[in-house]
Amino acid sequence: MKMSNLYAPTLKEDPAEAELASHRLLLRAGLIRKQAAGLYSYLPLAWRSLKKIEAIVRDEMDAAGAQELLMPILTDAELWRESGRWNAYGPELMRVTDRHDREFALGPTHEETVTDLITNELRSYKQLPVNLYQIQDKFRDEMRPRFGLMRGREFIMKDGYSFSATQESLQEIYDDMKQAYANICERCGLRALPVVADSGQIGGDTSVEFMALADAGEAALVYCDDCGFAADEEAATTSVEVTEGPGDGTLQKVHTPGLGTIEAVAAFFGFPENGTRKSLALIAEDGTPVVCIVPGDHELNECKAEHLFGAYHMMSDEELEAHGLHKGFIGPVNLPEGIRLVVDENLRTSKKWACGANEVDYHFTGACPDRDFTVDEWADLITVHAGDPCPHCGKPLAGARGIEVSQVFQLGTKYSEAMGATFADENGEEKPFLMGCYGVGISRTLAAVVEQHNDENGIIWPTSIAPFEVSVIALDKKGEAFDEAARLADELAAAGVEVVFDDRAERPGVKFADNDLMGFPYQLIVGKRGIKNGTVELKCRATGEREDVAIDEVVAKLAETVRSERR
Amino acid sequence: MKMSNLYAPTLKEDPAEAELASHRLLLRAGLIRKQAAGLYSYLPLAWRSLKKIEAIVRDEMDAAGAQELLMPILTDAELWRESGRWNAYGPELMRVTDRHDREFALGPTHEETVTDLITNELRSYKQLPVNLYQIQDKFRDEMRPRFGLMRGREFIMKDGYSFSATQESLQEIYDDMKQAYANICERCGLRALPVVADSGQIGGDTSVEFMALADAGEAALVYCDDCGFAADEEAATTSVEVTEGPGDGTLQKVHTPGLGTIEAVAAFFGFPENGTRKSLALIAEDGTPVVCIVPGDHELNECKAEHLFGAYHMMSDEELEAHGLHKGFIGPVNLPEGIRLVVDENLRTSKKWACGANEVDYHFTGACPDRDFTVDEWADLITVHAGDPCPHCGKPLAGARGIEVSQVFQLGTKYSEAMGATFADENGEEKPFLMGCYGVGISRTLAAVVEQHNDENGIIWPTSIAPFEVSVIALDKKGEAFDEAARLADELAAAGVEVVFDDRAERPGVKFADNDLMGFPYQLIVGKRGIKNGTVELKCRATGEREDVAIDEVVAKLAETVRSERR
Repeated sequence: MKMSNLYAPTLKEDPAEAELASHRLLLRAGLIRKQAAGLYSYLPLAWRSLKKIEAIVRDEMDAAGAQELLMPILTDAELWRESGRWNAYGPELMRVTDRHDREFALGPTHEETVTDLITNELRSYKQLPVNLYQIQDKFRDEMRPRFGLMRGREFIMKDGYSFSATQESLQEIYDDMKQAYANICERCGLRALPVVADSGQIGGDTSVEFMALADAGEAALVYCDDCGFAADEEAATTSVEVTEGPGDGTLQKVHTPGLGTIEAVAAFFGFPENGTRKSLALIAEDGTPVVCIVPGDHELNECKAEHLFGAYHMMSDEELEAHGLHKGFIGPVNLPEGIRLVVDENLRTSKKWACGANEVDYHFTGACPDRDFTVDEWADLITVHAGDPCPHCGKPLAGARGIEVSQVFQLGTKYSEAMGATFADENGEEKPFLMGCYGVGISRTLAAVVEQHNDENGIIWPTSIAPFEVSVIALDKKGEAFDEAARLADELAAAGVEVVFDDRAERPGVKFADNDLMGFPYQLIVGKRGIKNGTVELKCRATGEREDVAIDEVVAKLAETVRSERR
Repeated sequence: MKMSNLYAPTLKEDPAEAELASHRLLLRAGLIRKQAAGLYSYLPLAWRSLKKIEAIVRDEMDAAGAQELLMPILTDAELWRESGRWNAYGPELMRVTDRHDREFALGPTHEETVTDLITNELRSYKQLPVNLYQIQDKFRDEMRPRFGLMRGREFIMKDGYSFSATQESLQEIYDDMKQAYANICERCGLRALPVVADSGQIGGDTSVEFMALADAGEAALVYCDDCGFAADEEAATTSVEVTEGPGDGTLQKVHTPGLGTIEAVAAFFGFPENGTRKSLALIAEDGTPVVCIVPGDHELNECKAEHLFGAYHMMSDEELEAHGLHKGFIGPVNLPEGIRLVVDENLRTSKKWACGANEVDYHFTGACPDRDFTVDEWADLITVHAGDPCPHCGKPLAGARGIEVSQVFQLGTKYSEAMGATFADENGEEKPFLMGCYGVGISRTLAAVVEQHNDENGIIWPTSIAPFEVSVIALDKKGEAFDEAARLADELAAAGVEVVFDDRAERPGVKFADNDLMGFPYQLIVGKRGIKNGTVELKCRATGEREDVAIDEVVAKLAETVRSERR
């Protein structure tokens, strides 16, 4: 391919609307263009990379025994009503009415369609398990589409669905898919962590998200470099050590005028925040007033609180007053009657608490459970931090931000029960299928790779998904060096290398900048001076290293290098 | 792939809703399933074939210098308003309103999007030509979706668009695309004709449709086996020979009581229908009453008439009476005043017409133009038939029915002008792009291939797009023959053959029937008796021929055969 023919319009300036590196670079290097909010065209360079990502995904899916098919994008609203998602999904679901006034969804996922597809055709446990997948444009009407391909309204997904007769079979497929997903990330050059996740909109009981590590990621993660544990901050559970508060262990009321924050109280006692107790007052969904207590250096975890209290809310100033509580001075001792006391598990062994005294401008030290107050419930309440011990091996957890690129779910019988999709088991009894679902964001993976692999000059493609593996740059516009560059490009192509020949009538500086921006893994720079010595310059985009290579060896050398890096 | 794992649910009975062979067989053999009217899932066997068709299309497009990209399915209504198609397209256009009340079309084609995409990025004639394509799900809300994949509401298309600075450049790309399309049909095993066509909804001035020949086709074609000319009956133009009518050349009025049809008049005179003149009365769009005269054995062509008379209609009985015309006895002589006489070109040299006398129960013979009546206009009026001479070589044309599988268009400046898409020419002047558009129905091609390649037992895949090239059929459910079959399947796979191993615990008869139905090009039948003699049976699905082949030669032989047939 000649670069003079390639449709890859580059931009001189950073596009104003692009906040993320991937968004900015994919626009600047001529890989994507916005058609409307959250809707992008993938230009030839991006499309070449996307096809390679798709090929890797297909390869891993097929190796794991999954079979590819393609279902319609339009999915009948009737099916979505059966599953209950037509109403539950909300405005993110794009809806279409056809000329006969029949309603359809533009599928964001295809649980309903695939369940409908196999119903009455998969009839016996003998036909199971079956694992089906497709690669398709998906739709989600995001309130605020942004970050380029990260959060678009139309995006390319691999979605897959498995049907099993037993939990063991589901677990086996789920584990295979998890391994395949790890392989996909690795083969695409993505540093990603498999993270235990909330299951969200799709439902189900066990799920893992693969998070590509990137500062721009929307999710906050903790992970253990030592044992490989990783979790969303919101979902992680661990045991943290807590410091005992000051004092000799007797209950002491201390005058702490105006010290209504953990920071101020810790400073007053000359103590780490971890040695104080943080109290939070809320109203549970059923109206019960609750005080939660957590170690002073941790936060109440909203997901866990929701799990315990339903749709709760923190008490307003009026509600605090109505329940006899004093902002900044709440604590477990002398709690007004009728308030439920729920305390974080990590505090179960602590006997000397520094905590609010339920009296303005006073704290207690040496407060002791069972002696000075009664705990109604011990529970896991806190959000895990970087620095907390790994729940598996105890080493300190690291923190990072991540981009969700893929996810595996055990759906169980959520859809099969709702939609009456059953098979006959060994005893001839009709049972609902046990389902799993498995998604890979193909276009999001592209963006995540760019987010991880770039520098101030542009994209740095991993060879496995680079649009072209090598660019041959002619320093002259014609003459011997140009002809030699053309010849080398042809030879590389004949040797099976994906090569683009920068034949444009541009200055070398422009060519270097564009090739760095587009990020092809290797640049072969062909100039008069080198040719005189029988050499060309080979530049590695990732390391920036340059070396002179003999002209008659460079094709074989490069072909060997890229082959080894294709994975 | 083991057939026991393959998701390809076959049907024992012919599905009632399927009229066409392709629809019936794709359902029965477990290749497609209906999700809703005009919406189909492609199951793994169909999907494997579709991917091969896509690969052939990509190969031909890339070889012709086109570049692949992918545009969003959702296309902004604003662009469709600019082009004028938002209102012009009608209810076939599926429309979506997003959560912010912005309107979008589900793209049936992408002229607007691609024109918007390149505007302000392709700026100079130096960057031209550019030829871009994509493979994508398309949408058209058919009033009555039917015939399975032939006329669905969501279907897979390759659509491509070229941008040129000059007509010569457009013509060159158009010609290249035409050749590529012929190659695609040939490589997919499709007998198809390139047919001069009306340009229809998309517009433009020059276009060719590729019509796969099939009795079930919706279009009536004429073609010349000798020189390769082909055209839609509706669009074809040719010179037909006409017979002179009876008599000595003087104008004679003949009493023809009750003989109001061409057939009756020809029989009365003992003359071929071709020797009579057929008269048709209509009202042109501007209100002018018109009588058209054509050779008695031909029909007035509606397209050509529309071209001449605008939105015309045939006269009703009341209108005939109002204009002094008598049904069955209309003719050119003594035509009431104010009626325009338009005559088919083919009659220009004929001097002895047998025609209606404009008097009930009377005809003329020997009516002669210029002597007995005055022709207002000579024009091409007739629909060409099988048997008419080829307009290029004069040999008799053959008739056939066809399925439109692809089409090339010269759009010219229709979209670029409407949307203000211009480039600077050599003199720095802003000019609208000259555009071409090029479409291939990928899923329709699949159906057309099945429509052409089947027999009473099922599908007969051309090797180039077969879901699997070879099926290995074990006659026993276990034991030596089963193991040998498994080994041969593995060896074939290792030799690069796409093989499915029918390992199911079914009777041989069931396996034979299913494999014939699914239509894999070669069946390798492995039984105890053959093994004893060191042979297996090789069956060719297309010819039905069976031969015994030595076990130790069959893998190499089959690998060689399928390789040569892959194209």
